[in-house]
Amino acid sequence: MALMISREMRLISRPVGMPVEGNFALAEVDLGTLAPGAVRVRNRFISTDPYMRGRMLDGPAYASPFPLGAAIPGRAIGTVVDSTAPGFRPGDIVRSMTGWREAFDAKPQELELIDTLGISPHHFIGVAGVPGLSAYAGLTRIAKVQAGDIVFVSAASGAVGAVACQVAKLRGAKVVGSAGGSEKTAYLREIGVDEVIDYKAVPNLGAALAAAAPDGIDVYFDNVGGDHLQAALANARPFARFAICGMISGYNTTGPVPGPANFAQVVGKSIRIEGFLTANHMDLMPQFAADMAGWLKTGAVKSRDTFHDGIETAPTAFISLFTGANFGKPIVRIAELSN
Amino acid sequence: MALMISREMRLISRPVGMPVEGNFALAEVDLGTLAPGAVRVRNRFISTDPYMRGRMLDGPAYASPFPLGAAIPGRAIGTVVDSTAPGFRPGDIVRSMTGWREAFDAKPQELELIDTLGISPHHFIGVAGVPGLSAYAGLTRIAKVQAGDIVFVSAASGAVGAVACQVAKLRGAKVVGSAGGSEKTAYLREIGVDEVIDYKAVPNLGAALAAAAPDGIDVYFDNVGGDHLQAALANARPFARFAICGMISGYNTTGPVPGPANFAQVVGKSIRIEGFLTANHMDLMPQFAADMAGWLKTGAVKSRDTFHDGIETAPTAFISLFTGANFGKPIVRIAELSN
Repeated sequence: MALMISREMRLISRPVGMPVEGNFALAEVDLGTLAPGAVRVRNRFISTDPYMRGRMLDGPAYASPFPLGAAIPGRAIGTVVDSTAPGFRPGDIVRSMTGWREAFDAKPQELELIDTLGISPHHFIGVAGVPGLSAYAGLTRIAKVQAGDIVFVSAASGAVGAVACQVAKLRGAKVVGSAGGSEKTAYLREIGVDEVIDYKAVPNLGAALAAAAPDGIDVYFDNVGGDHLQAALANARPFARFAICGMISGYNTTGPVPGPANFAQVVGKSIRIEGFLTANHMDLMPQFAADMAGWLKTGAVKSRDTFHDGIETAPTAFISLFTGANFGKPIVRIAELSN
Repeated sequence: MALMISREMRLISRPVGMPVEGNFALAEVDLGTLAPGAVRVRNRFISTDPYMRGRMLDGPAYASPFPLGAAIPGRAIGTVVDSTAPGFRPGDIVRSMTGWREAFDAKPQELELIDTLGISPHHFIGVAGVPGLSAYAGLTRIAKVQAGDIVFVSAASGAVGAVACQVAKLRGAKVVGSAGGSEKTAYLREIGVDEVIDYKAVPNLGAALAAAAPDGIDVYFDNVGGDHLQAALANARPFARFAICGMISGYNTTGPVPGPANFAQVVGKSIRIEGFLTANHMDLMPQFAADMAGWLKTGAVKSRDTFHDGIETAPTAFISLFTGANFGKPIVRIAELSN
């Protein structure tokens, strides 16, 4: 194996408010010769996720902050191009957490061999990966969705939201989905969402939800927080269950984010609100990935993502998560090596 | 049985913000002759509770609003003075929901016969009644308190809070209690609360809670909302459970109440927040009342309430709930008939 040059995208300053391209810088590293017992991987699909915004802060957010001056960690799907470790061979598809780089060397325990189950490998950082599992775990374990429930999903055309809508439908629920803009709302109709709200086009989200779900909602799957959470509280039925997956509306604010002004409704309506981290539900992953592969192949679940080509596009892809410019999951695609 | 004159306290206007004496008016009614199949009751102890504030509004609060011009409904303990109904005899102790009046006639199904179990009857609208059950159901069913948990209780010297503290201790938890003023905090120490916060005396409630519970809290029993809820979120451990019994800090505001500014912590810490109404947990009452009677008799649980004498003091007693002027539960005591 020849030397290999890999480009990587580093975090060079901590974003204040909305991240900008200047928070990131491209760097080139020479991987050198593969060490004994190691595996060289060429990434093909790199994940950009809202949770990463929290880890760009230097504070007690989700987990330890991303270090400055280093490639941003995160999930990626790649192909083994060389290996001196047992159990890994060139051509194997692997999932890793080493992040925003074209190629890297890893120890076997840093890599997860992926059986692609007959679907495109990029799904394993999308609908059949952690984003999909977030939707599945939140709906089934946290909100305990049941047939006949009225389920409200925010950011419903996003990587997590679109799976939440479709899993809720598969479980026999009626689904109200909110997204911004006509292209996204059209997509929600395409994937079978019963009632669609274009939150950018309605003067009052609470009233729009009341019109879409006149009997109220049993379940809220929250990706957004803010106005959406407040609308969900206002329209909750007694004993409603809220699964809080994320609150992207507040991720780029620089001061405290006011909580919902109608929070006291949790008492009168006996509402249960529960936050969760998908990392605590990984035991569900094998069965979920197998189920999702089947749903994708039969068309029971649809998936639409946005590909950004080249490691240099990673900041743009990431920032699109917060501006609403993305469609589905923004995935950074790295070309396969031609040699 | 002679005619009987009863005085009653009526709601005559809906409070805007803090209730005032002028929202209420005393009236005299002649009960006349007892009808066949009815029971005449002389009230002895009348309950004033924070939830009543919501029902003074003409809106979709907890339940139907209290009508204007009528005696305020609510729990009371009384003595049967006359009966033409089977199953009720003079001297029987009964619990009713007909509210702020000295005496009334009722149908048997409006009355609940109380076995006082060797404790004072007033406890059956207090520690051995719905307020006590609120604490018990919230801690055991909603928050699922366990031995070793660190439990934070707000309004900890109140009718509900003091029981929450003591039940948590009986379950083997460590308890941090918050109350306002030196008399209340001294009482918390007297009933065995491990760490006491005088919220009126600390500059920063979140920092005070962090000092009282340096490893964080597993359970929060919320009677207050507002700053207390925010402090609890800031100091929650992963998988903390919050039982939301009430949010008295917002009951008398006239505009929207800002929710906690750190609400997004529910995601990163996988916090579960659940509101509840004690009305949905009345199945626990018989066993709870029996247990509480035992605890009171052995001294395992202490109770201290404030008595207000005469039906004319009911508004003062009620308003004291919101000004912090009460100690324990404000109970309106009606003198027994001397004839």
